[in-house]
Amino acid sequence: MTSALPPIDDHDASPEVRAIYDDIRKTRDTDYVGIFWRVLANDPAGLKRTWEGLKQVMAPGMLDPLVKEMLYLAVSITNGCDYCSHSHGAAAKAKGMTPAMFAELMAIVGMANQTNKLADGYRVPVDERFKNLF
Amino acid sequence: MTSALPPIDDHDASPEVRAIYDDIRKTRDTDYVGIFWRVLANDPAGLKRTWEGLKQVMAPGMLDPLVKEMLYLAVSITNGCDYCSHSHGAAAKAKGMTPAMFAELMAIVGMANQTNKLADGYRVPVDERFKNLF
Amino acid sequence: MTSALPPIDDHDASPEVRAIYDDIRKTRDTDYVGIFWRVLANDPAGLKRTWEGLKQVMAPGMLDPLVKEMLYLAVSITNGCDYCSHSHGAAAKAKGMTPAMFAELMAIVGMANQTNKLADGYRVPVDERFKNLF
Amino acid sequence: MTSALPPIDDHDASPEVRAIYDDIRKTRDTDYVGIFWRVLANDPAGLKRTWEGLKQVMAPGMLDPLVKEMLYLAVSITNGCDYCSHSHGAAAKAKGMTPAMFAELMAIVGMANQTNKLADGYRVPVDERFKNLF
Amino acid sequence: MTSALPPIDDHDASPEVRAIYDDIRKTRDTDYVGIFWRVLANDPAGLKRTWEGLKQVMAPGMLDPLVKEMLYLAVSITNGCDYCSHSHGAAAKAKGMTPAMFAELMAIVGMANQTNKLADGYRVPVDERFKNLF
Amino acid sequence: MTSALPPIDDHDASPEVRAIYDDIRKTRDTDYVGIFWRVLANDPAGLKRTWEGLKQVMAPGMLDPLVKEMLYLAVSITNGCDYCSHSHGAAAKAKGMTPAMFAELMAIVGMANQTNKLADGYRVPVDERFKNLF
Repeated sequence: MTSALPPIDDHDASPEVRAIYDDIRKTRDTDYVGIFWRVLANDPAGLKRTWEGLKQVMAPGMLDPLVKEMLYLAVSITNGCDYCSHSHGAAAKAKGMTPAMFAELMAIVGMANQTNKLADGYRVPVDERFKNLF
Repeated sequence: MTSALPPIDDHDASPEVRAIYDDIRKTRDTDYVGIFWRVLANDPAGLKRTWEGLKQVMAPGMLDPLVKEMLYLAVSITNGCDYCSHSHGAAAKAKGMTPAMFAELMAIVGMANQTNKLADGYRVPVDERFKNLF
Repeated sequence: MTSALPPIDDHDASPEVRAIYDDIRKTRDTDYVGIFWRVLANDPAGLKRTWEGLKQVMAPGMLDPLVKEMLYLAVSITNGCDYCSHSHGAAAKAKGMTPAMFAELMAIVGMANQTNKLADGYRVPVDERFKNLF
Repeated sequence: MTSALPPIDDHDASPEVRAIYDDIRKTRDTDYVGIFWRVLANDPAGLKRTWEGLKQVMAPGMLDPLVKEMLYLAVSITNGCDYCSHSHGAAAKAKGMTPAMFAELMAIVGMANQTNKLADGYRVPVDERFKNLF
Repeated sequence: MTSALPPIDDHDASPEVRAIYDDIRKTRDTDYVGIFWRVLANDPAGLKRTWEGLKQVMAPGMLDPLVKEMLYLAVSITNGCDYCSHSHGAAAKAKGMTPAMFAELMAIVGMANQTNKLADGYRVPVDERFKNLF
Repeated sequence: MTSALPPIDDHDASPEVRAIYDDIRKTRDTDYVGIFWRVLANDPAGLKRTWEGLKQVMAPGMLDPLVKEMLYLAVSITNGCDYCSHSHGAAAKAKGMTPAMFAELMAIVGMANQTNKLADGYRVPVDERFKNLF
């Protein structure tokens, strides 16, 4: 598969793009910058916005970093995004996801996709007691 | 909204349906049986299969019960299932999800939906190092 | 709910739109024209194209008319289209779909949505023997 | 494509997994077990639940077995599931789907996907007469 | 419909949230702040990130502001997002979208959704000449 | 990838299919007929209906031809349709889409997909002032 715009190597990157690459490396404690970021680098403002947004969203918070990656993975699988399922699957594994945990995640993704359509297709009205969340 | 088939009250339920209702009450330690199950009860085999499958999938395992509910919720929101977002939102709250945790979940769901489409639209090829999960 | 463009009544319809309304009545042997068509009538060329396409696709062919309506319904439920699930549910019922048949359809829709995501999430490669259809 | 978890061959399968494989062979009157089941076998409880659910849903009922396969196929195509479109396409063909029947199915899938979005985008309110299904 | 978290009025907003509300008013030359932003304000960092991202993406660029709104609207309709179809429909109208232009947009959305599924379902391989975009 | 039905070459085409191929060539001022049309030709009525519908929808109207192609592309990317993203990406480029314009389109597609889910997941009620479009 050829990307719609070419991935940009470090030596072809502008200083602002290079700074984002370096921040990715530092934040993730790796020397590898994924092809996603290198393609997005064709739009430097988009690269910066997306990376900084992702970094903020995935930073330590109320939820455990592994839980965050697994939520990301479950959404990516539901959307059928091949790239993101691969990259966030790898990230979840690096943070401790075992095959058994992945199988549990998959079982939930499968079950939710089934009951989502059952609820929609049977036109089930929302129970009064579920109407207010917070 | 009127459901596609009428919800079945306890007194109209067959013994096999009633047994499922009782198992839902016992498993969840509540006297409330949601409309979803009461509509599904028009197909007793489907009710039994779906309830027992869900019970098995959401039972204690490698993942924390709250994490499981949040995964279910994230998938349901991604699919735009109004009923399931309400019912699993309520279930996650009952298991300890706070507004701040919900906001973190939502930020991940939003970000994943964004990057899923960026990866697809830019046709980003999967990095070699992400190709094998386990 | 207010439609994005107003539904057009018979007495406000241009001759070309009125001719489509009449063809809908004649083809379906009813005096009722659904709101979908009346809203689409704001774009007379779109109304004509869509109605004639639908009439052609749903005409008697290799598949039974009820099977055709059930396929339409299954797709509409999968897409979460509330209007089409209602209108094609009604059409399928008028052609003989019973509650038991609807429940079987729903069970298939639910199961397919589940296994679709299991196959995607587990990245199952297509079996050699399934690669050629015809 | 490499599956997320490795497919499990017969000789590596536990007795409970082997029993499911045998039931697949017997139920389908074939000696072939698809890769989907072999990957799912990494989660023996999930394999059993999914296979037994699928067997129940696709068993002879009110709807013709070929109609059931075509419903499964139409949903799988709508969801863009490559694996399931291949496996259920092959299953439908084995049960009698001809190229002409497949073309009719495809025409319905295409038309439904079009009108689903027209109804949503034009925000067409549901006709009173369509509000109750059964 | 009750939002999952309550909308935050101006007088209950923290200074940082109030500053975003003011920037929305100034950027859009209006005194109205939509409910979307007021609900998102429960997560001040998310409000800031989302608003600043949206402002950047929708700012004058290579594409005409009306074209940008119409692209946003077409995506929102395809995703079945009721809120965004309403808000971006209103924004597109404010920027000059007429009923005839909306009808053209809808015709394209409908046609694309149809051919998307025909291409997927018929498993059409990508033509060599389409493989490289830029 | 092998298509579900074989593409039909000019010399194997019936006169009615050949006439459509010729109209595609003439309308687009090219001698190339894409594989999509050649596969669809297995269903001559479907080929004629789809081509004539597409030709009508994409004909000069209120919207600029390039804007039309970009709307088609944005929808195709949102739906994850690989074939259509390639073919309409190529068509948009041929009509003048530059890499910078494509990057703006992608930024909008990504942002819309994000806010669509935020609005759904937070269950944001539609503002009164957005309820009527035209």
